[in-house]
Amino acid sequence: MNQPLSLQEVRVSEGSFWGKRIRQVKEVVIPHQWKALNDELPDAPKSHAFANFRIAAGLATGEFYGFVFQDSDVAKWLEAASYSLIHYPDPELERLLDEVIEVIARAQREDGYLNTYFTIKEPKERWKNLRDNHELYCAGHLIEAGIAHYQATGKGKLLEVVKRLADHIEARFGDAPGKRRGYPGHPEIELALVKLFRVTGERKYLDLAAFFVNERGKKPLYFELEAKERGEEKPSWSFWTPEYCQAHLPVREQKEAVGHAVRAMYLYSAMADLALELQDQTLFEACKNLWENVTKKRMYVTGGVGSSAEGEAFTFDYDLPPDRAYTETCASIGLFFWAHRMLLLQRDRVYADTMERALYNGILSGISLDGTRYFYVNPLEVFPEAAQKRHDLRHVVLSRQPWFPCACCPPNIARLLASLPQYMYTKDEEESTLFVHLFGESTVETLLGGKRVALVQRTGYPWEERISLSVFPEEPFLFTLSVRIPSWCKEAQVFVNGERIDLGTSVFGGYAKIQRLWQGGDFVECVFPMPVERVWAHSEVRSVAGKVALQRGPIVFCFEEIDNGSNLAGLVLPEDAEFVATFDPELLGGVVVLLGEAYKEHRSSGELYSFVRPKRERIPVKAVPYYAWNNRGIGEMAVWIRHGS
Amino acid sequence: MNQPLSLQEVRVSEGSFWGKRIRQVKEVVIPHQWKALNDELPDAPKSHAFANFRIAAGLATGEFYGFVFQDSDVAKWLEAASYSLIHYPDPELERLLDEVIEVIARAQREDGYLNTYFTIKEPKERWKNLRDNHELYCAGHLIEAGIAHYQATGKGKLLEVVKRLADHIEARFGDAPGKRRGYPGHPEIELALVKLFRVTGERKYLDLAAFFVNERGKKPLYFELEAKERGEEKPSWSFWTPEYCQAHLPVREQKEAVGHAVRAMYLYSAMADLALELQDQTLFEACKNLWENVTKKRMYVTGGVGSSAEGEAFTFDYDLPPDRAYTETCASIGLFFWAHRMLLLQRDRVYADTMERALYNGILSGISLDGTRYFYVNPLEVFPEAAQKRHDLRHVVLSRQPWFPCACCPPNIARLLASLPQYMYTKDEEESTLFVHLFGESTVETLLGGKRVALVQRTGYPWEERISLSVFPEEPFLFTLSVRIPSWCKEAQVFVNGERIDLGTSVFGGYAKIQRLWQGGDFVECVFPMPVERVWAHSEVRSVAGKVALQRGPIVFCFEEIDNGSNLAGLVLPEDAEFVATFDPELLGGVVVLLGEAYKEHRSSGELYSFVRPKRERIPVKAVPYYAWNNRGIGEMAVWIRHGS
Repeated sequence: MNQPLSLQEVRVSEGSFWGKRIRQVKEVVIPHQWKALNDELPDAPKSHAFANFRIAAGLATGEFYGFVFQDSDVAKWLEAASYSLIHYPDPELERLLDEVIEVIARAQREDGYLNTYFTIKEPKERWKNLRDNHELYCAGHLIEAGIAHYQATGKGKLLEVVKRLADHIEARFGDAPGKRRGYPGHPEIELALVKLFRVTGERKYLDLAAFFVNERGKKPLYFELEAKERGEEKPSWSFWTPEYCQAHLPVREQKEAVGHAVRAMYLYSAMADLALELQDQTLFEACKNLWENVTKKRMYVTGGVGSSAEGEAFTFDYDLPPDRAYTETCASIGLFFWAHRMLLLQRDRVYADTMERALYNGILSGISLDGTRYFYVNPLEVFPEAAQKRHDLRHVVLSRQPWFPCACCPPNIARLLASLPQYMYTKDEEESTLFVHLFGESTVETLLGGKRVALVQRTGYPWEERISLSVFPEEPFLFTLSVRIPSWCKEAQVFVNGERIDLGTSVFGGYAKIQRLWQGGDFVECVFPMPVERVWAHSEVRSVAGKVALQRGPIVFCFEEIDNGSNLAGLVLPEDAEFVATFDPELLGGVVVLLGEAYKEHRSSGELYSFVRPKRERIPVKAVPYYAWNNRGIGEMAVWIRHGS
Repeated sequence: MNQPLSLQEVRVSEGSFWGKRIRQVKEVVIPHQWKALNDELPDAPKSHAFANFRIAAGLATGEFYGFVFQDSDVAKWLEAASYSLIHYPDPELERLLDEVIEVIARAQREDGYLNTYFTIKEPKERWKNLRDNHELYCAGHLIEAGIAHYQATGKGKLLEVVKRLADHIEARFGDAPGKRRGYPGHPEIELALVKLFRVTGERKYLDLAAFFVNERGKKPLYFELEAKERGEEKPSWSFWTPEYCQAHLPVREQKEAVGHAVRAMYLYSAMADLALELQDQTLFEACKNLWENVTKKRMYVTGGVGSSAEGEAFTFDYDLPPDRAYTETCASIGLFFWAHRMLLLQRDRVYADTMERALYNGILSGISLDGTRYFYVNPLEVFPEAAQKRHDLRHVVLSRQPWFPCACCPPNIARLLASLPQYMYTKDEEESTLFVHLFGESTVETLLGGKRVALVQRTGYPWEERISLSVFPEEPFLFTLSVRIPSWCKEAQVFVNGERIDLGTSVFGGYAKIQRLWQGGDFVECVFPMPVERVWAHSEVRSVAGKVALQRGPIVFCFEEIDNGSNLAGLVLPEDAEFVATFDPELLGGVVVLLGEAYKEHRSSGELYSFVRPKRERIPVKAVPYYAWNNRGIGEMAVWIRHGS
């Protein structure tokens, strides 16, 4: 078992790849999103999310507006803003959060209930439709916000509020006599309850999380029972099925990822949390089965999941069309959360590899370089005319948006980025090993076996292949430093104080294990060579057969129209084409680009069909990191490019 | 200008490619469809179409059942059965038709109105919603049936009925004072009215057809005016737009094929009919613009049209995805009708080439080899699991069906096949030239300049490349035989009485023009070499970039799982692969198959993404005619296959 470090223990360096992003969250993202939540952005869809709280609190009059899960936008923003305060103390922001929390506290009912939709609009309909109504989901996000605010500021006000909310829920749901055997249509509260257990030590929260997970999918299906109680004839969502919210089978019997991808990721995260806390091997096995299915059969090369817009859902094995991908930003974030939890259960680099894949690609693509625009859907191939004119691509939005009517993704990415340092390192439960999972300039200060140790990571990652780790123990002592050798790296080298170590004998679960009596100033150097690699998908991924993606280090690249002209389908990467990676400090905030040559096919004849092979010429091409696409206007983009001779 | 021959003048030979099909229409298709229309097929969806007529006629009691256009199924069947009687006299069928006609006649109201939906179900809603309600469409099909029955049997009963119906309509619609300026949401009556004019000589029918075509798309839009009169707030079909039924612009301003593909094809056919009858050059120009757009930018290699299931519609230039094709059988039939009408206007082989492309591929694929099952949608690539599990492929049905709730296609293909001989030849209006447009064993007997001439076409087409045409004039006389040189044929040879003629100087508009004093027994031999050709789509057809289709003669081929194993996306046709065409008399009713080799890609690793190129082996492959696919069970199919070295 591993344990995470706290946010206070890890600091990402200013000016580094992630340091710039985390500062941007503080300086740009949090203020921008606060404006969105208060309808102060001129071009953004109406949110009204904070106004709903003010109305529910009796501080304003008016109607509820938005989705039944509108509250969660405020909660996730609050969580992000709280994390931000840890590394960027800001009295003004802290005061604003206090005010927001005051309003939220006032919106809470006397019995602990807290949800503005049902408080304002349908007070008699509370808890009658767990399948659709997101009350438990919203509660989960409020609980996570309360914990984050407490951890960031030490202030207990919101934590008390959400504990009362959790108690209200705990009094209603569970398997004890008199309680209802319900569970959420959209998992999320389970994660929050496990966290609440960890913060408060109160076992009932863990038990409730376990109940929600264990009850899921049991027959008779709770969702059908409550629908019958409501007198419902059929669900209002035409695509609703038990699979849609992973309630088709008890969780331990689930072997394939089905249904709404975000729900799936949150459920599997909860399963992993409980497997850890309860040492539940059957739950861990179920997680591993699902992990195999997702990462070996149902995940895009960008770490995106969800192959279908209908139901924002998984489809079937190897169905990964790049143009019709849904790959919601939240789903990639959910995959990251799940992978992190799996990593706490099992020291295997596949989990951190997947965190890295999602983070640098399918998650980061969800936010513009300037931090003010978001993608909800992250396709791997876009032809704007098709997206505008084909109904089966109606979900594809051609440029990042300042906000959404359903705005789950923007604050989700904010809270992930603001808390990113927390995911970079773990230590084992015996506190004899410090693990380095993710790379990026940062400083750790933690305790190992009661002794303080600092570690400084210096690197130009993900652009540069060298990582140096300097260790500063409070006094020389024996412990292990375990550094992930990324699976994309075929010829890694690791040096300790300049001496190369034999990775053939010292790598366990993909981590270079360096055990020694560490002295102040000892340093580890990792060299992870980053040739430009052609990526082939499994041959059953029919939609990209004959195509390759380009990857260098953890970064998946794409081709954009602005660099390569229109009709990217007409490009063929020759087998003999060498790509040169070069850092362009002026482009897209400073990125490595790949320069090479490709054939471009042309047809001189105007005929639609011809027996004559199209002519082609060799032209220079340029690939840019996928995450940075669409920051220079609307145009074509493709990750997968034809490959041939 | 060209003129068609009558059905009586052309007879397709028994036992030939089309002869077998036409006999099957008589022996299998017409009885099968009659059962379907009377709900006597055990596995077919309910039709009730003839029962609706019996109820409207007062011969039975009950409710109307089906779509608002249910009547048209009976009408098209009646048309097909009538054509069939011409070459296969059948007293029993003739008697059945008389009985059917008797019922239809009794269903007609005193004022000439004839539509069972509005007679039975909504008598007060007649003519209030031309946009959606298909009254004019159904009337059109009844009129065509009346004409066909008259032409086949000489009996005037149904013709009189439909004339009264046409008169009823003519009294209501038009630009004369007191008439309504309406026109049909679904074009079809225009074609029928032109035919009715030709049969009766009554100009008012032609004028009404011209009014319908000319009024279409004028502002203010009739469909909006009538919707307002109905007090309608918005159309019940979410995807309804003026484009959907080609009413977005006056027809002469339309340059691109938009909207519902069948409606478009019928409208353009009507425009061509009127261009011919009225010598309307502006209408002809509009037809040519639309023809260019469809055949050079929006048509599948099979002659299918309609790239999107939403609205069964055209999308945009070069958007021709093989898997998400809609390519309704009726739309290909409509393209065939339109091309035939264009051919009457202009002696250019592109029209007959397109008739041939649609006929042998996208139309014929619509009916099973045994004549009892139908495709409505004809995709060019099917992966059954995707069709079952992806919502954007929900319209793809994995096997031909005995009938459909919306059963437009089965009787449409029946009436086309039963009348096919009529489309093979034309003569010019001076009656000095006989044109041979389509190939197939057949006999023509017609008059040229008042003199009788017979022509016997012998050929194993489309499998064999030789066609012999023997001419038997009643006495030697001067006329021209013009034989199409198919555009797929690059090295045609034509011999007259054994002597090769110079096609460099004798081909006009793609037809070999042979003018001479024809003597009894003179014969023309055509050799149209049929190498296996690789077809490349225009480079803007992104969905098939890097792929080829195989074509031999007019036949487009496909690969089926049953012959080539699963995962057709893993096949690569090598540049150097030779395909051998061989006739297999045992397979699929006797077809030419293409035998060759392809690379098949395999991945040994279970990883989803790899930096290692998939291994491949060279395996034998077999392609079969596209039209014959899915006659050996459900499986994968692909027309477009990757091509490379």
